[in-house]
Amino acid sequence: MADAAHYLGLDIGGTFLKAARVDAGGQVVERRREPVASGDAGALLAQLETVARGLGGAARGCGVGLPGFVDRRTGVVHGVPNLRVLEGVALARELSERLGVPTAADNDANAAALAEAWQGAGRGAESVLMLTLGTGVGAGLVLGGRVYTGRSGYAGEFGHLQVKPDGVPCGCGSWGCLETEVGVAGWVRRAAAARERAGGRTALAGVELDPERIVEAAKAGDAVALAVVDESAALLGVAIAFALDLLNVEKVVIGGGVAAAGEFLLGRIREQVRRRTFPQIFADAEIVPAALGGDAGVVGAARLAMQAAGAA
Amino acid sequence: MADAAHYLGLDIGGTFLKAARVDAGGQVVERRREPVASGDAGALLAQLETVARGLGGAARGCGVGLPGFVDRRTGVVHGVPNLRVLEGVALARELSERLGVPTAADNDANAAALAEAWQGAGRGAESVLMLTLGTGVGAGLVLGGRVYTGRSGYAGEFGHLQVKPDGVPCGCGSWGCLETEVGVAGWVRRAAAARERAGGRTALAGVELDPERIVEAAKAGDAVALAVVDESAALLGVAIAFALDLLNVEKVVIGGGVAAAGEFLLGRIREQVRRRTFPQIFADAEIVPAALGGDAGVVGAARLAMQAAGAA
Repeated sequence: MADAAHYLGLDIGGTFLKAARVDAGGQVVERRREPVASGDAGALLAQLETVARGLGGAARGCGVGLPGFVDRRTGVVHGVPNLRVLEGVALARELSERLGVPTAADNDANAAALAEAWQGAGRGAESVLMLTLGTGVGAGLVLGGRVYTGRSGYAGEFGHLQVKPDGVPCGCGSWGCLETEVGVAGWVRRAAAARERAGGRTALAGVELDPERIVEAAKAGDAVALAVVDESAALLGVAIAFALDLLNVEKVVIGGGVAAAGEFLLGRIREQVRRRTFPQIFADAEIVPAALGGDAGVVGAARLAMQAAGAA
Repeated sequence: MADAAHYLGLDIGGTFLKAARVDAGGQVVERRREPVASGDAGALLAQLETVARGLGGAARGCGVGLPGFVDRRTGVVHGVPNLRVLEGVALARELSERLGVPTAADNDANAAALAEAWQGAGRGAESVLMLTLGTGVGAGLVLGGRVYTGRSGYAGEFGHLQVKPDGVPCGCGSWGCLETEVGVAGWVRRAAAARERAGGRTALAGVELDPERIVEAAKAGDAVALAVVDESAALLGVAIAFALDLLNVEKVVIGGGVAAAGEFLLGRIREQVRRRTFPQIFADAEIVPAALGGDAGVVGAARLAMQAAGAA
């Protein structure tokens, strides 16, 4: 083991820090999970250093996924509303100085996409688009085995694709954004409105709404819930079709908590994409569930570390 | 001159064949233009060979742009409704055998995008999206100096992005496609409907409609025409914003006959994109008019030749 190459993957969330030592084949060898030290940047950096040293003093590189963007020209972190202490921090450089190994940082959705493209549901594909459906809607695009970050690191801003011209305003300044409509709050808002229109004649009456309950009711045959699921699939279909027509992507990987609805949702998304894409482009694209679950973040971060170390 | 490297660029349209000998700096040294021999594939290949030999027996490579797709796995041409004789032809391989030099073929919108990225309005940018607004709506995506073709060669199918959920059916099987709405026929259809709604109270009354006339009337202050221009800009804005949010592209180059409307249209497109994109992504992207005009096709094809010859 002392001879084998290992890499560290850190996945910083708004609440928890996940960390793992990962081998060159993508296997998690050892892992940690603890609350994020979000008091100030110094405390967070110290925590990251401690966790990293505890996991792998001999690791050849360290990668970090975080809930925001990394400007690829400056390395500075931006747009981290859920972990404001990281705003303006040149995270990879700071960590690299502390750990003495090549270090890379990127958006968490990008890290997850890289993991799925490397060892998960997108394995073997030249181009992979991964969508994470949860509270928000995140995405990462992997071309030729590398995260495509765009000019400044903002590529893959899938959550703010405008899919509903008459949709509700979004915090980003636009309206009808994918995240506003099919993030968890979007499911709940649309279901609440549909329930009201139905005058209570639905299994959703009196229920505390969340995507899981809505999907359950739809599976059980409730027409109001089914219409909410179908609209979600259609809105996701618009966005995915857009990405496919633009990029002729080989695999679309769908993960995140809402994707736990499984084939019931995935099959509907596939059909909505089919209706909106070129036949050849649709035939070339597989739309599949994510395979790595909660490990995607740390495994993808470790892959970033391998790439930073020149080993991939 | 005998020592300098030259490359051939062929731009096959539905009606005319344009050809040029281009130097390694992208300058057109010599050019030809003649009707396409569209009788059968053999006649067309013979014409391409004759034109190529006439222009540059000593050229180091030959590139071809064509009004369809080239499957990047097989090299076979598909989807050429305006020049059906090319359907199923492995064009680059056939020409390479006849000419004895490395040869490449790609979609004409991709070739034009490559030219603009190399020597035109996108020069110096790492990522360039070029839109050609004409009878159809074409696009090409150039990343790191190379055309991004996607899995099978269909990337950049911008014309069939669904921008109007309640739009009219498109020949592709979907509906509300960008091309159906803002291709020349889309401008005319929307303007005719607006004129009828206005009961003739518009400068468009009794006029044979085309985008140029509609823009002229809008510039002169006609409210009905202005609304048609504004809707065109909004629909283009939806699609461009989508591409920017997904790819964080550095330059968006807009060319084609309809783009001759200039800043009057371009400024409106820019504003519609601004309303729909992340501020950082919008700030990073320049939306500019094409610079190479009618030469883009042959210059881009010559650049494909340079890349096929390993010289770029």
